[in-house]
Amino acid sequence: MACAQTCLTEDLVDELALVDIQADKLRGEMLDLQHAAAFLPRVKIVADTDYAISAGSDICIVTAGARQREGESRPSLLGRNLTLFKSIIPQLVHYSPNAILLIVSNPVDILTYVSWKLSGFPPNRVIGTGTNLDSSRLRFLIADKFDVNAHNVHGYMVGEHGDSSVPLWSTLTLANVPVLNVRDKNGVSYSKESLQELHRTVVESAYEVIKLKGYTSWAIGYSTASLVKSLLRDQRRIYPVSVRAKGFYGIENEVYLSLPSQLGRAGVLGVANVKMGEEEMQKLQQSAKTIWKLQSELEF
Amino acid sequence: MACAQTCLTEDLVDELALVDIQADKLRGEMLDLQHAAAFLPRVKIVADTDYAISAGSDICIVTAGARQREGESRPSLLGRNLTLFKSIIPQLVHYSPNAILLIVSNPVDILTYVSWKLSGFPPNRVIGTGTNLDSSRLRFLIADKFDVNAHNVHGYMVGEHGDSSVPLWSTLTLANVPVLNVRDKNGVSYSKESLQELHRTVVESAYEVIKLKGYTSWAIGYSTASLVKSLLRDQRRIYPVSVRAKGFYGIENEVYLSLPSQLGRAGVLGVANVKMGEEEMQKLQQSAKTIWKLQSELEF
Amino acid sequence: MACAQTCLTEDLVDELALVDIQADKLRGEMLDLQHAAAFLPRVKIVADTDYAISAGSDICIVTAGARQREGESRPSLLGRNLTLFKSIIPQLVHYSPNAILLIVSNPVDILTYVSWKLSGFPPNRVIGTGTNLDSSRLRFLIADKFDVNAHNVHGYMVGEHGDSSVPLWSTLTLANVPVLNVRDKNGVSYSKESLQELHRTVVESAYEVIKLKGYTSWAIGYSTASLVKSLLRDQRRIYPVSVRAKGFYGIENEVYLSLPSQLGRAGVLGVANVKMGEEEMQKLQQSAKTIWKLQSELEF
Amino acid sequence: MACAQTCLTEDLVDELALVDIQADKLRGEMLDLQHAAAFLPRVKIVADTDYAISAGSDICIVTAGARQREGESRPSLLGRNLTLFKSIIPQLVHYSPNAILLIVSNPVDILTYVSWKLSGFPPNRVIGTGTNLDSSRLRFLIADKFDVNAHNVHGYMVGEHGDSSVPLWSTLTLANVPVLNVRDKNGVSYSKESLQELHRTVVESAYEVIKLKGYTSWAIGYSTASLVKSLLRDQRRIYPVSVRAKGFYGIENEVYLSLPSQLGRAGVLGVANVKMGEEEMQKLQQSAKTIWKLQSELEF
Repeated sequence: MACAQTCLTEDLVDELALVDIQADKLRGEMLDLQHAAAFLPRVKIVADTDYAISAGSDICIVTAGARQREGESRPSLLGRNLTLFKSIIPQLVHYSPNAILLIVSNPVDILTYVSWKLSGFPPNRVIGTGTNLDSSRLRFLIADKFDVNAHNVHGYMVGEHGDSSVPLWSTLTLANVPVLNVRDKNGVSYSKESLQELHRTVVESAYEVIKLKGYTSWAIGYSTASLVKSLLRDQRRIYPVSVRAKGFYGIENEVYLSLPSQLGRAGVLGVANVKMGEEEMQKLQQSAKTIWKLQSELEF
Repeated sequence: MACAQTCLTEDLVDELALVDIQADKLRGEMLDLQHAAAFLPRVKIVADTDYAISAGSDICIVTAGARQREGESRPSLLGRNLTLFKSIIPQLVHYSPNAILLIVSNPVDILTYVSWKLSGFPPNRVIGTGTNLDSSRLRFLIADKFDVNAHNVHGYMVGEHGDSSVPLWSTLTLANVPVLNVRDKNGVSYSKESLQELHRTVVESAYEVIKLKGYTSWAIGYSTASLVKSLLRDQRRIYPVSVRAKGFYGIENEVYLSLPSQLGRAGVLGVANVKMGEEEMQKLQQSAKTIWKLQSELEF
Repeated sequence: MACAQTCLTEDLVDELALVDIQADKLRGEMLDLQHAAAFLPRVKIVADTDYAISAGSDICIVTAGARQREGESRPSLLGRNLTLFKSIIPQLVHYSPNAILLIVSNPVDILTYVSWKLSGFPPNRVIGTGTNLDSSRLRFLIADKFDVNAHNVHGYMVGEHGDSSVPLWSTLTLANVPVLNVRDKNGVSYSKESLQELHRTVVESAYEVIKLKGYTSWAIGYSTASLVKSLLRDQRRIYPVSVRAKGFYGIENEVYLSLPSQLGRAGVLGVANVKMGEEEMQKLQQSAKTIWKLQSELEF
Repeated sequence: MACAQTCLTEDLVDELALVDIQADKLRGEMLDLQHAAAFLPRVKIVADTDYAISAGSDICIVTAGARQREGESRPSLLGRNLTLFKSIIPQLVHYSPNAILLIVSNPVDILTYVSWKLSGFPPNRVIGTGTNLDSSRLRFLIADKFDVNAHNVHGYMVGEHGDSSVPLWSTLTLANVPVLNVRDKNGVSYSKESLQELHRTVVESAYEVIKLKGYTSWAIGYSTASLVKSLLRDQRRIYPVSVRAKGFYGIENEVYLSLPSQLGRAGVLGVANVKMGEEEMQKLQQSAKTIWKLQSELEF
């Protein structure tokens, strides 16, 4: 719902179809959005348990999934979600054969791979929100530390969304100064330890929010809306999102992982050739192997 | 949270302070908003159980209150909320003596009156969201029936927010045509019965959404944000909101009720002199008496 | 250029093609817009003297025309603009056979009729900006007098854009109060004379701005952008714009005149049945006859 | 006017006061903006030849100045503009003693210095738009070459606005890849010659637009609005703008030059410590000396 409502407020869509299995809750959410008609540009909002109402969509956002439990690792969600996706993806594909699939559910990398396989779509039309949110969290923490706007912090976290994500420290900049060289008000710059600490904070952020409020919503809603804008309005902006990663940075397995990717009306337009250190590439390749192993055990 | 998040997305504030008694949940919500920093204009977001962080606010939005239970009438919420307000309002007033108080909690009319009394503020700086949302719901239903944009339906529901609200049918227009004269695609215009049916639908909307999803959030969030914009940005627009009603339309009691009011940087700038029928005024006066009776039994 | 730049700023388009016969000036304007890339969402901006670059447009906005000279009546511009349109419209139609044509050039009503004839398009896809701007001017004057937001003044000027435009006084409202009944701060309401004076001010506005700064630009740019939004984003809002008027309000001639019309992705979706007084309808029919006479003398 | 209109469209101001010596043209522009009231949030727009109407401004934008003639260097404008500023700045300061002064007129660096001297303001409240626009032009050219969004090109041109501006190539990045390492679709990366060529294109851009359309307007309007947003809404974003440069990067003269500066409600909050090569610093110091020499000959 945070994804849907943020797309509405940011005026990104002309039609919005909500599909869920809980008919009652679904109707309640639809009415609650419709009642705001006088405060928003006109959007046709429909909701049903039947996927038919989603027919002809330009983009299908999948947030369905068992909610991550407090302390639960993203991979552990997998078993609970695979069966679910087998019932969702073919329906979406049936009614919107030309849509872009944007997967939000966790573990996002594997579920995006699963969606790709189930959909039969070309890989450029199957995308996971991946580390786009992790990157925003990192940028916020750095911006907050130096009291600047997060829009002046540039850089990406890549790889697996979650515990084994990889921050690209060497290319992360603040006002185009490599963040490794920036000093705070007291003249102190980042040590290797403080960077690892920062990474740990980002990784733990999702767990912390889930622990404190029970789930994450607002930030992933904004993250998703930013991707929807670049996709539907052909913005050709580069975001760290989960894409078919085989062949990039020495990744040999058929997996989805977050890499800086250019997004436009056709989906993924390309992967940016961001410079990585040896250690960063190794971590990425290790994630690929771990994910591949998990995927190999899935039965389609 | 829907109020806060909508104000953020619509870029209405530069600083946002969240206060709640549940420290954990509060911190979770704050983090979830902060993590979106890279997707939003910069806003300083703070949260605490201590009202001190709200010091110097331009506007204080109060949504606290026991949540309306399924089937519960708004007045029945009153007892549970009065004590709460006695702990909230003086704190807000202490830290932001020049703020505008915008009350969202239900029963909104009485709680806005209560806030006025507790605050010692002039009445123009104490406002309830009132029937602003009811009016949006009515406009949506009419717009939906005739398949036009809700921005072309103009008119107000006034009086008590909830069961005894009063739609001003005689001045309600669609594309500047009195809605009473508009015919739908089949040439059928509204009968008196269908109008009463429409009013019933609006009144039941809140109950229906609460029954279906457990609470209302999105629409009241947008409604509140629209008022915040007019107040903070001195838009001088007219909204049906809960204001001190004594002296208007023959209302003799010291109550708050929704009337079409002009909102600007100074709060309520005036009440619009919308023409009402005899029956409409009687209903309004009856609401005033009912509310006054309830209020008389409150102990401050 | 004000139309183009406002559509850009309001984020209404993903591609913008500018066509003009002055290659130098055109390239200068294109560069000046492109240089703002870092401050705007990405839009592909192209410009050429060859209409081929406009191929596949969803909407074509025509502002070409000899500029109205100080004191020149709109009809007197006609001769100078007909030849021009014979060179423009067929080219646009050739390259964008499914586009909506939105005509801004003056005299707008006749030139919209001319465009309809030259294009061979169905009438719902040929629209003139008409009295949309006149209506905004009237709403501003009334809002300014009563110090309210112009968004609370509702009503339309219809008929011919310019000297013989027809304000629909009987349905014009301020906060849903008929403006004829509203009293200002000194308790004075509008007399018939003051209303006629207000109409005169609106009519003279265009002449005054042209006299003072040489041309009109900003307001017509915003007016056009508002229509573009409703058309491209299927807003289904009602605007007073120049549409094929035959058959409405006793108009018997084949002319274009402004009537309150619902605009969506398919162009004109319908004409609102706004109540008019006898005098108002007569003026409208008189305008139709005058315009028809002028049109009859045109040679296609 | 492009500055004023863009600030309006982007909803950055609640009140707008236009001051000019040409009373007629000024009134025409004011009316043309006011007539758009129905299409915009409410803004109080006033205009006068008397500076008194600007009293109490939060920010004063100065665009006055003899317009740069085709082929005219920015410094050559200086003589024509100094006298003008002696009549403008003291009036603005008199009526808005706490305002931020934002100087757009050319030659912007010297005129911002002049404004600082004439105003008696602390330097953090006197800012020139400087190379903010040059930087946008450079980012557009690079983004256009690689067909990405200009928002993914990060980097600054610094120093003097105009012929001797200094692009900081070593820190310029595309998707966080140093632009020096990026290869285009044909595998060709930037050579030193192509970079110098790119710089030349940017420098000539202003001259080219002036030659083609007579003046620059749209891009500088957007550039100015972006600064206004960061200043008034305390965005704390970093922009390359003209600030008091003495003491930074070995600059010893009392001059204004563009450096990456953090802008917030208090004006200039600080200068970012962007890494510069030896050659870049020398150019900057050389600009400082040239400007200082010119300034030394000015008589206050």
